[in-house]
Amino acid sequence: MSKLEMVQNAAGRMVPTMVNGVPQVPYMGVGKYQPSGRKAGPPIPQCGDFPRSGDKRVPSIKEALVKCGIRDGMTIGSHHHFRNGDLLMLQVFAACDELGIKDLVWFPSAAFPCHQPLIELMEKGVIRRVEGSLNGPLGAYASRGKMNGLAVLRSHGGRWQAVQDGEIHIDIAILAAPTADAFGNCTGDRGPNACGSMNFGLIDSMTADRVIVATDNLVPFPCLPWQIQGNNVDYVVEVAEIGDPAKIISGTTVLTKSPDRLMIAEYTAAFIRATSLYRDGFSMQAGAGGTALATAIYLREHMLADGYKASFMRGGSTKYMVQMLEEGLIGCILDGQTFDLEGVRSMRENWNHVPTSPFTSYNWHGKGNFASMVDFVVLGATEVDVGFNANVATHTDGMMLHGIGGWQNCLDANITILPIPSFRNRVPIIMDRVTTLCGPGELIDVVITERGIAINPRRQDLIEQTKHAGLPIKPIHQIKEEVERFAGGPPAPPKVTDDVIGVVKWVDGTVIDSIYQVAE
Amino acid sequence: MSKLEMVQNAAGRMVPTMVNGVPQVPYMGVGKYQPSGRKAGPPIPQCGDFPRSGDKRVPSIKEALVKCGIRDGMTIGSHHHFRNGDLLMLQVFAACDELGIKDLVWFPSAAFPCHQPLIELMEKGVIRRVEGSLNGPLGAYASRGKMNGLAVLRSHGGRWQAVQDGEIHIDIAILAAPTADAFGNCTGDRGPNACGSMNFGLIDSMTADRVIVATDNLVPFPCLPWQIQGNNVDYVVEVAEIGDPAKIISGTTVLTKSPDRLMIAEYTAAFIRATSLYRDGFSMQAGAGGTALATAIYLREHMLADGYKASFMRGGSTKYMVQMLEEGLIGCILDGQTFDLEGVRSMRENWNHVPTSPFTSYNWHGKGNFASMVDFVVLGATEVDVGFNANVATHTDGMMLHGIGGWQNCLDANITILPIPSFRNRVPIIMDRVTTLCGPGELIDVVITERGIAINPRRQDLIEQTKHAGLPIKPIHQIKEEVERFAGGPPAPPKVTDDVIGVVKWVDGTVIDSIYQVAE
Repeated sequence: MSKLEMVQNAAGRMVPTMVNGVPQVPYMGVGKYQPSGRKAGPPIPQCGDFPRSGDKRVPSIKEALVKCGIRDGMTIGSHHHFRNGDLLMLQVFAACDELGIKDLVWFPSAAFPCHQPLIELMEKGVIRRVEGSLNGPLGAYASRGKMNGLAVLRSHGGRWQAVQDGEIHIDIAILAAPTADAFGNCTGDRGPNACGSMNFGLIDSMTADRVIVATDNLVPFPCLPWQIQGNNVDYVVEVAEIGDPAKIISGTTVLTKSPDRLMIAEYTAAFIRATSLYRDGFSMQAGAGGTALATAIYLREHMLADGYKASFMRGGSTKYMVQMLEEGLIGCILDGQTFDLEGVRSMRENWNHVPTSPFTSYNWHGKGNFASMVDFVVLGATEVDVGFNANVATHTDGMMLHGIGGWQNCLDANITILPIPSFRNRVPIIMDRVTTLCGPGELIDVVITERGIAINPRRQDLIEQTKHAGLPIKPIHQIKEEVERFAGGPPAPPKVTDDVIGVVKWVDGTVIDSIYQVAE
Repeated sequence: MSKLEMVQNAAGRMVPTMVNGVPQVPYMGVGKYQPSGRKAGPPIPQCGDFPRSGDKRVPSIKEALVKCGIRDGMTIGSHHHFRNGDLLMLQVFAACDELGIKDLVWFPSAAFPCHQPLIELMEKGVIRRVEGSLNGPLGAYASRGKMNGLAVLRSHGGRWQAVQDGEIHIDIAILAAPTADAFGNCTGDRGPNACGSMNFGLIDSMTADRVIVATDNLVPFPCLPWQIQGNNVDYVVEVAEIGDPAKIISGTTVLTKSPDRLMIAEYTAAFIRATSLYRDGFSMQAGAGGTALATAIYLREHMLADGYKASFMRGGSTKYMVQMLEEGLIGCILDGQTFDLEGVRSMRENWNHVPTSPFTSYNWHGKGNFASMVDFVVLGATEVDVGFNANVATHTDGMMLHGIGGWQNCLDANITILPIPSFRNRVPIIMDRVTTLCGPGELIDVVITERGIAINPRRQDLIEQTKHAGLPIKPIHQIKEEVERFAGGPPAPPKVTDDVIGVVKWVDGTVIDSIYQVAE
């Protein structure tokens, strides 16, 4: 890989001035970058070019791709609601391979271990590179410097922003629909392989030149509700199975059993309770990880004791959140992604369980979004540092193994809490400087570990509010030193070269950090 | 008014090559115009310029207009769900007048008699002209050549198309919201002045540079459902009353009592029943006029007798349609506009009563729309001619008194039926050539009068299917002659000058006809 010109951004990180041939704006600080220009629009179609009957079915993915004018170098958008159970994108790229197409850019909202077979197609040149969160094997492949072009990690809101602003142009969007009609209206909240919301694919449907819906559950017109509108769809393809249901969504979401993590969850719920924002009508967002789930369960006990209800909770929805909705403890669930079958059922049956898109929830280039209206957000991280900066993309050995999801966007909440174990695999997670900067410390308020709670000194209000709550509140340096004593010192620095293999975008499209090739 | 350069279009009508300074494409025939270019996008905003709390309230309409940067010559978009009960737009333009603003273009989805006071502001130069359907006094004002600039009549789908395609740029959109939160999420299906769907304002919210929501029913975040998304809204204003509820929507929809019209309705239902498309699972759209309502009631009897259910009906929803939905005779209502309180209740309570936007229903520059998927559409007209061409905009005296609504878009149904009385105020409505061409005869299949049913000779299939149904089917010339005998001859030609005061756009944005100044 040829050397890139690097500049130092406002966070002190060195970032390339060009990424995959596109000039970049280095991160300028939270809220500092002022966008210009107008939102991008797709080509203007006309009804005369579409069947009057509304029946847009074609017999195969391959035929749909040909009708969409697939050619070398195109960008193919897709969404990740099928997670590690996706069967569709392997079929799509196999069809591209059969057609002799080369040099494609795959632009998923996230890639998963199930997409490992695509490495072969990258080696073969069918796919030039993947632009999107790379979880697992594809991330490791890129980390080793094997991908042709840089990885570009974006948040869910950042992906919407990039497409909306015309930074990324999707030539063909592939939408995997749990239920669809022949016109292309589709929904994720029902069907044998239901995934809940399909909204990560919404921007693709609205802006791509061509849109293909693939479904294994075709219903008569009209498919209700229509999370995606057929008026944006070119072709509909029936496939045997869009995904492996066991891996798309779990019937049950698993609570942590780890005593340390349960303690962290208990601290987190108690911390929230000690703040002044915890009141009748508060709002919250928590993920579906084991610790976050346990936090919600502890918090529910506090809410019952205090007679408080939440005005809304943002999901990742789970059966625990659905239970709280159904027992009247939550006014509504604003759901970005559905994590279990109870969440799917609730979205299908309850007017107050509302699917939300990244536009609504997260897009920084909107007239506001929901993220800043959330009182408490409970998130994870792979590393934090003494400046409260955090990393979610790489491990301490430098390997890029995770996507960003909505994490960066959620940092805009009123109180951002990272409940995390103080070390993983004997490696301390609190350090002097995170390996990769994904979230600036000024947005991260509290780090909660089993060894104590560190409050960002910028949040004197929270320090004041919680000081008599009987919680183990300590300076972050103190927790760091305790962990290092236990682990035998700070973590070893990552073994990386100075070759950049990827960048992390901030929510406004600027480049906040670089990711380096691991030395083998 | 300076003379315009005129050309003959594919329908044989003379149309101007320029309208209000914008070059025009003359109508080329149904489906013949191929658009190019990309959809227009609004400026890219950023969350940092909006309140983190999500509270976008400002104290008054005037202050909101100032914050939106109101200035001379801007285009102000608004929607017409409050119909003749709108109180908001008079306030908006009064505020513009107080601010000394001149030369505005008002771009409503329709104007009503209640907007007559705006004539004074046109005389004063605050409003230069109105671009949109002009019902009643504003239409008469324009017809007399008094408006500064040409009237441009578009269908609901055509309005979406024009904005989407960038033909019209909305500087500031005003949305009248029956229920809204401080972030700008809003809905029409609830609140003291509920109007059902707000979707005629959807394109305004998505594309205008600036968007103001005015409401008389502010609710805590989040306003559910959000027909309009706060993420597109700049400011929210609380007003005492957005409209006069008695004129916004009627508690009851009035059936015709005229024996002639009841006979027409009975013929229409019987004609539908005689066609092969009438089957279990058929679909239909009918308006909320007295004859259309009566048709639906007769048809319901047939459906009960035949054991048939409709897969969907498109509204204008009324209590009659809601009753059919609730008794299981209709799979779902796809509702473009809600005409009575039962319609509003049903939309609020029933997952299968779905608000639809002009994008979904009507936009010709989409990847299909719902209009062509409707089996039967039942519409009105002011005039038809022996070529089955029809007029909905002007009267036979040349006066422009009506908007187009969804009428042009609906012509795309499989069977388009115009049930109309054979004369009005002693003036025959079947003539040699309609005063203003709004719908080409090739799209109009059946004209049903109290004197007989005329089937377009292009529809030999329908002639064949219905010939043994015992219906009074006659050539259109024969009905015309009967009416003329009764009325004492054909109608007098309109008394108009050769000055063009307006144009009618076809659904694809081309100009299908001109409207001329009436001679006083």
